[in-house]
Amino acid sequence: MVVEKYHKMGVAKSRIRELFEYGMAQAKVVGKENVFDFSIGNPSVPAPEKVAEVVKELLEMDPIALHGYTPAGGCAEAREAIAADLSRRAKDQIRPENIFFTCGAAPAMTACMHALAVENAEFLLIAPYFSEYPAYCASTGAKCVVVPPDTENFQIRFDELEKRINRNTQAVIINSPNNPSGVIYFEETLRKLGEILTRKGEEIGHPIYVLSDEPYRELTYDGLDFPYVPNIYPNTVICYSYSKILSMPGERIGYVCVPDQCADSEALYAAIAGAARAIGHVCAPSLWQRVVARCTELRPDLETYDHNRVTLYTELTKMGFRCVKPQGAFYMMVEAPDGNSEGFSDRAKALNILTVPCDGFGCPGFSRFSTCVSPAMIQRSLPAFRKLAESYGLKGE
Amino acid sequence: MVVEKYHKMGVAKSRIRELFEYGMAQAKVVGKENVFDFSIGNPSVPAPEKVAEVVKELLEMDPIALHGYTPAGGCAEAREAIAADLSRRAKDQIRPENIFFTCGAAPAMTACMHALAVENAEFLLIAPYFSEYPAYCASTGAKCVVVPPDTENFQIRFDELEKRINRNTQAVIINSPNNPSGVIYFEETLRKLGEILTRKGEEIGHPIYVLSDEPYRELTYDGLDFPYVPNIYPNTVICYSYSKILSMPGERIGYVCVPDQCADSEALYAAIAGAARAIGHVCAPSLWQRVVARCTELRPDLETYDHNRVTLYTELTKMGFRCVKPQGAFYMMVEAPDGNSEGFSDRAKALNILTVPCDGFGCPGFSRFSTCVSPAMIQRSLPAFRKLAESYGLKGE
Repeated sequence: MVVEKYHKMGVAKSRIRELFEYGMAQAKVVGKENVFDFSIGNPSVPAPEKVAEVVKELLEMDPIALHGYTPAGGCAEAREAIAADLSRRAKDQIRPENIFFTCGAAPAMTACMHALAVENAEFLLIAPYFSEYPAYCASTGAKCVVVPPDTENFQIRFDELEKRINRNTQAVIINSPNNPSGVIYFEETLRKLGEILTRKGEEIGHPIYVLSDEPYRELTYDGLDFPYVPNIYPNTVICYSYSKILSMPGERIGYVCVPDQCADSEALYAAIAGAARAIGHVCAPSLWQRVVARCTELRPDLETYDHNRVTLYTELTKMGFRCVKPQGAFYMMVEAPDGNSEGFSDRAKALNILTVPCDGFGCPGFSRFSTCVSPAMIQRSLPAFRKLAESYGLKGE
Repeated sequence: MVVEKYHKMGVAKSRIRELFEYGMAQAKVVGKENVFDFSIGNPSVPAPEKVAEVVKELLEMDPIALHGYTPAGGCAEAREAIAADLSRRAKDQIRPENIFFTCGAAPAMTACMHALAVENAEFLLIAPYFSEYPAYCASTGAKCVVVPPDTENFQIRFDELEKRINRNTQAVIINSPNNPSGVIYFEETLRKLGEILTRKGEEIGHPIYVLSDEPYRELTYDGLDFPYVPNIYPNTVICYSYSKILSMPGERIGYVCVPDQCADSEALYAAIAGAARAIGHVCAPSLWQRVVARCTELRPDLETYDHNRVTLYTELTKMGFRCVKPQGAFYMMVEAPDGNSEGFSDRAKALNILTVPCDGFGCPGFSRFSTCVSPAMIQRSLPAFRKLAESYGLKGE
């Protein structure tokens, strides 16, 4: 007498966790230094020292104020700081009232999806997509419709997108820099997306929102930048998390931003607040609200991630693998030489290389390698990668 | 094109917040010391000093481990500590695998309710109930059925309860010590509840769970104690929060405990984990998981709350008000002399006494007074209460 879909989600060990546990066990057999775990997306760069300093500072505050309830949307200090920070990039100013703090990006996304899940609602996912979106969608009762991947440039297949829009389409979910591809949507891609959604929205008689899930926003390389999406398409809601930028994914702090220029912004903000409340949101952790308010200028130390990205891309490409060059985040996709990503991950696993097949990300044929690992592990893993390449008969340089 | 029920929940300013804002405005007119705000349930006793000490200790840890993702159910250290702590009270041992950490009791409750919300599911609420339960229920699609209050002893009207049980009944939600009544269910009450649910469960062919929402578990007075419910009725799931015991409601840390003896405990735990994931749970704040693991022996300083409780109860009773004597938590209910609790709260408000009518708690005719206030404020408020009593023609001592 429990809900079957939730039971399934609860017992289905995630592929990533399964690999992690396998890696732990295998380390005991072959030695920790001979297991090459590229499966997990836990930041490998420590939180900036300022984070601990700010926490210590805050502990001097009155504990009743520090640890007490904040308003549901966040304390004034935090909302003001984030609004001011976003306003530096936004054409139209962001007010504290546009910000709703959440326990990370996941509940930010689910609150938005619940708010928009009217009867027969559909959400469009653009493959490759973050593998948890279908689970979030399941809790809303809405339908989730997948736009197949552009496996050349990992932008958006607009013909396929347009075909899937109908009067039930409530939002398109984008995630850029992308997990798992590491690719950033070009400004041109966003502009085209905006044009189509504007036109289709007029056709169907209601706005189609973009839910922009941006936890990797500041993790970009080669001088690239992810644009501020509402500047390009007004009906954009931003979901953000401090997990990656401040290397504190366990602390659960993020927000939703509904800019004023977003269609029906007040009603949408209210519905998001109401949905959040109904699924158990009271406020985001109060200490962490105040920490991020005082750390808006911090940027992650990208050097290690960038170095890993370049090394792994260069070395694997040299061996004859087809790699998708990452421009952001800390993931790289590698194509299975025979198109079978499950088999590829299994074969890699036999060589103690742990990698996640992208079938669960809507992108079969590819596997995801996390580059948030130690540079030394990458170096140690290269002979195993060479064996993997040989096993497929790849001809490297 | 947003979901109407969530929009309503988002725009409906809570009565409590409205009163709070009125109080702030009124303070500017009549002076802060002349506004007597009994509306809010924010702990007025600071977090024990050990909390800050433990945070400082933990900041010495490797930040990647400290702030990183924990498993969805919580880190091993925290689950082990809580399991050991609960096992001291439980007839049957609690294992770390029975514990699922959440961002406070609210998402613990919603995850349980989602997990149990099969088609046509019904949840029984026993009035007076915590006013957010209907909102949680709304997000699951289940029906919430109210058992009217026992306005004499504030226990359970078993005749009314039994009438409302049918084959769709999935769980009875209890909250003891109770918000808003401050009353504790007697062990006898829980035993009788268990008997009925056992019998009815056999009749309808599936277990009826008790969801025991226990954030005030340790806030009890007069040597009373709230029993460990699974010792009395095995099909009990506990939802707990550290908000009140450690005076840190803003930090969002709590857990679900599904004991082994609970019917289908493994399936239920899995469904709760799956439901939590689907509504956006990733893990509970990792720093706070470790803090509570090291603070299981702490108990709140109840002296102030107890003093307030006794003063307010004694003084108001002397004035001729009918008060429900609180045995736990930090609330007291007062009956509106003319049975109109909205009118009573309005009349009190005109005297700058802020109190919440219990209509939203399923208990019209009563108003809730929070006793987590300063003792000095209670003293200052007494002349206003006397005027309130006079306005109803009450004859005090």
